[in-house]
Amino acid sequence: MSTVQNSPLLKLHSDDNIAIARNSVTENQECALSENESVTTRESIDLGHKVAIQNIASGEPIRKFGQTIGFATIDILAGDWIHSHNLESGVLSLDYAYSTDVPTPPEPIKGRTFMGYRRPNGKAGTRNYLAIISTVNCSATASKYIARELAQTSLENYPNIDGIIPLVHKGGCAMQYDGEDHHQLMRTLGGFAKHPNIGAYIVLGLGCETGQGSFLSESEGLVQLENPNEPQNQGPLVLNIQDIGGIAKTVKKVTTLLKEYLPQVNDVTRVPIPVSELILGTECGGSDGNSGVTANPALGIASDLLVAHGATSILGETPEIHGGEHLLTRRSITPEIGKKLIDRIKWWEEYTGKFGVVIDNNPSVGNKRGGLTTIYEKSLGAIAKGGSSALREVYRFAEPVTEKGFVIMDTPGYDPASVTGMVAGGANVVAFTTGRGSCFGCKPVPSIKISTNTPMYHRMQDDMDLDAGRILNGTSVEQVGQEIFELIIEVASGKKTKSEVQGIGDEEFCPWSIGPVL
Amino acid sequence: MSTVQNSPLLKLHSDDNIAIARNSVTENQECALSENESVTTRESIDLGHKVAIQNIASGEPIRKFGQTIGFATIDILAGDWIHSHNLESGVLSLDYAYSTDVPTPPEPIKGRTFMGYRRPNGKAGTRNYLAIISTVNCSATASKYIARELAQTSLENYPNIDGIIPLVHKGGCAMQYDGEDHHQLMRTLGGFAKHPNIGAYIVLGLGCETGQGSFLSESEGLVQLENPNEPQNQGPLVLNIQDIGGIAKTVKKVTTLLKEYLPQVNDVTRVPIPVSELILGTECGGSDGNSGVTANPALGIASDLLVAHGATSILGETPEIHGGEHLLTRRSITPEIGKKLIDRIKWWEEYTGKFGVVIDNNPSVGNKRGGLTTIYEKSLGAIAKGGSSALREVYRFAEPVTEKGFVIMDTPGYDPASVTGMVAGGANVVAFTTGRGSCFGCKPVPSIKISTNTPMYHRMQDDMDLDAGRILNGTSVEQVGQEIFELIIEVASGKKTKSEVQGIGDEEFCPWSIGPVL
Ligand SMILES: [Ca+2]
Ligand SMILES: [Ca+2]
Ligand SMILES: [Ca+2]
Ligand SMILES: [Ca+2]
Ligand SMILES: [Ca+2]
Repeated sequence: MSTVQNSPLLKLHSDDNIAIARNSVTENQECALSENESVTTRESIDLGHKVAIQNIASGEPIRKFGQTIGFATIDILAGDWIHSHNLESGVLSLDYAYSTDVPTPPEPIKGRTFMGYRRPNGKAGTRNYLAIISTVNCSATASKYIARELAQTSLENYPNIDGIIPLVHKGGCAMQYDGEDHHQLMRTLGGFAKHPNIGAYIVLGLGCETGQGSFLSESEGLVQLENPNEPQNQGPLVLNIQDIGGIAKTVKKVTTLLKEYLPQVNDVTRVPIPVSELILGTECGGSDGNSGVTANPALGIASDLLVAHGATSILGETPEIHGGEHLLTRRSITPEIGKKLIDRIKWWEEYTGKFGVVIDNNPSVGNKRGGLTTIYEKSLGAIAKGGSSALREVYRFAEPVTEKGFVIMDTPGYDPASVTGMVAGGANVVAFTTGRGSCFGCKPVPSIKISTNTPMYHRMQDDMDLDAGRILNGTSVEQVGQEIFELIIEVASGKKTKSEVQGIGDEEFCPWSIGPVL
Repeated sequence: MSTVQNSPLLKLHSDDNIAIARNSVTENQECALSENESVTTRESIDLGHKVAIQNIASGEPIRKFGQTIGFATIDILAGDWIHSHNLESGVLSLDYAYSTDVPTPPEPIKGRTFMGYRRPNGKAGTRNYLAIISTVNCSATASKYIARELAQTSLENYPNIDGIIPLVHKGGCAMQYDGEDHHQLMRTLGGFAKHPNIGAYIVLGLGCETGQGSFLSESEGLVQLENPNEPQNQGPLVLNIQDIGGIAKTVKKVTTLLKEYLPQVNDVTRVPIPVSELILGTECGGSDGNSGVTANPALGIASDLLVAHGATSILGETPEIHGGEHLLTRRSITPEIGKKLIDRIKWWEEYTGKFGVVIDNNPSVGNKRGGLTTIYEKSLGAIAKGGSSALREVYRFAEPVTEKGFVIMDTPGYDPASVTGMVAGGANVVAFTTGRGSCFGCKPVPSIKISTNTPMYHRMQDDMDLDAGRILNGTSVEQVGQEIFELIIEVASGKKTKSEVQGIGDEEFCPWSIGPVL
């Protein structure tokens, strides 16, 4: 019999009745699943495919990632290969079954802290940046110039400031005034302005854009976070290039103004803050066949650990949830919350339908050859990174995340847009799984990059923070999940991620625009 | 009687039968229109309003900008105020009347040249840049880092290189493969790659994006412009961060590679090139009430002069043409070309309709109070910058512009997106009119900024190149148009625009995405 370390089979979750072949297995092989659990294959199992680890009667659920991916169509014996011949989606697709399978809350874990910044408004920051929030592309160059000037002249005297971020983008005008895109951009810019990782900021516009800085400030109720010498709740500085008289004068004036902010922005100290105040944004990008087996379920373990500590974990990327939403509605703590998710799913179907585009998450021929049987199983590969806790809220893109526990935010699958929404919502740490290799960073929030496979981890060692590919070589999902959890706390406490060491994150601010651009 | 210089009336075009009040005029005032032409007002005329300068019989066309803006509903006498009470859109709105009013070609003007770069493929450049073309947001940071490294270490030895541009953007993935957005992005990136203002470039991707660099290179038939030591028509360098092993290694490798290009990119000399090889992109942004009276008609004069010299002038911003397309179809040299424009107008109506948005170019209450009567008149305020020549072609966004004369490209009104399309199409000089004050720049092409009013010109003197507001104080439209034409030639020959002096143009590259982002 194999040991757990060299076993060709991998049990992804303690509730599962199947295991995954991390290497091909021949018939009649006894394979370890844990210290005291094993199964003997009754047929050969290809790499990536599923094998029953207990007897499963016809009609009973098949569980992977601790969740139902379909039902046995015949009686299945421990050691049988499981695929399209004996597994079907079944009644899951018939209705959304709101709140029928709400997971029991985990045993609360108390007392764990990270070292963070306690902001005057009570929020918990993990970094300390000064930001120039550009309302429109027409003020992007000025914002970049100001950041460059400040970075060149002053920062060495302010060791507690992580940097100056020009939050610049391609939109802000030629959109419908007061329309959906306008409001979404205001939520996004407002969310960054209010983010606890930003010690101070100014809002910089051109002056004639649709998305006015004054509208932003009023609609989002912006206040300056760090302004101890001024009357409370005073609005932030909102400046326009047209009023100041062009780019050169604006750069000079704003640089001078912001230099005055530096001492007070620098005047912060990390203090112990309960882990319950962490808000994790989860993301995957450049997925590969290992994503749903290694990095995503391991990140799910870390998510569940955060939830057990009273913290928040956000799952985004609605187009990748699509097809698996039936599983999440079952986990929603109330039918209303489940219905919010279905509303967003329907919005996406309508939205993409306008363009004649269909969101197709069905397993492709290649997926099926690789061992994925049902659409639920495929979607769960993405959903897995959110863990298996009860779904406690569903947010629109860039809405403030105020609920604790496992929540969903409606974001596109596109990495920079998705993470921009979660950070705008208040995520103060991001965990990003990748198979092909992403170099993502997202100032002002640290982004931990987790590889799904070991060869890529080594090839892109300057960009990867943690290797979940070790799960394919015998490290358990739980072990890697625990490591991710510990790394999240270390990073929240100030340890720099690989992308931060390289200064990455100025270009990845990407407000999601749904159009139309006029 | 007033002199032409201090006359309160302004005749915008020699074919016009109306003039505009640049100041309020009382009844019974004799006002000069030109050296030997005057009119006596028969009633008081408010600032911005129209007055008849000859008798116009009921049913006859009213002409402004040399073009029909509607028809007299009663007999009008010279000196009468013209507005809604005696002017209506009339039959113009009934049909598109393709090619019924094609302007006579101007007398060709030959022999005028500018000093430009003659590229090996025969095209004419006005600047000489090295570019890093980023296929996707995920390679934007690396592209910026490479440009920064190169700029810091090497450029002082290569005085003929205008700069290194990282062409970075927010898209490139999470779009429908082979869909409209994908093709539009490929045309845009391909157009920049092939632009004669770019001496050499590399294409840099992450590796797993939808918009692959290899697809770009093949679909756009890319070749390296300046590669004398290598076999002809060899494709450009297409590199992916995932293949190289992350950002740090990519920056090192690509910087080293590009340094080898510098001597050959630097090895260029300006030579006399016929003005007929200029391709002007026209744009207006941050318009005000003067735009249609000063800067736009003056730019129209410059456009017509370019056309007379055999050059090309591009009009974009379809949403601002909307409502005035009937006037352009009459100027199209064939019905097929006119129909191409109407196809794009219909596309816009359908596209915005999907979002419940209506393109409304009808004069608002404020517009009417300011003197604008018909939708044609308002649209002509924007259309005026393209001049009054025959319409010779209609292009899709970022399509290569190969026709000479006056052409249209379908672009959004949004300045950075619109100019990005025209530059991708081959525009080698841009003229940008602005009333509120824009700080636009668009590497690798110089952008001449023309103010519609003198106070803004002075307030934003670091950003404005030419003041068309002088038209309100007596300088003729023709005079300012001629100055713009001469400045276009100077700038094409190397004179730096205000935005170039300040280095502006790295952030304004803005491929137009029609969605959906997935
Ligand atoms: Ca994903
Ligand atoms: Ca994905
Ligand atoms: Ca993603
Ligand atoms: Ca405009
Ligand atoms: Ca515009």
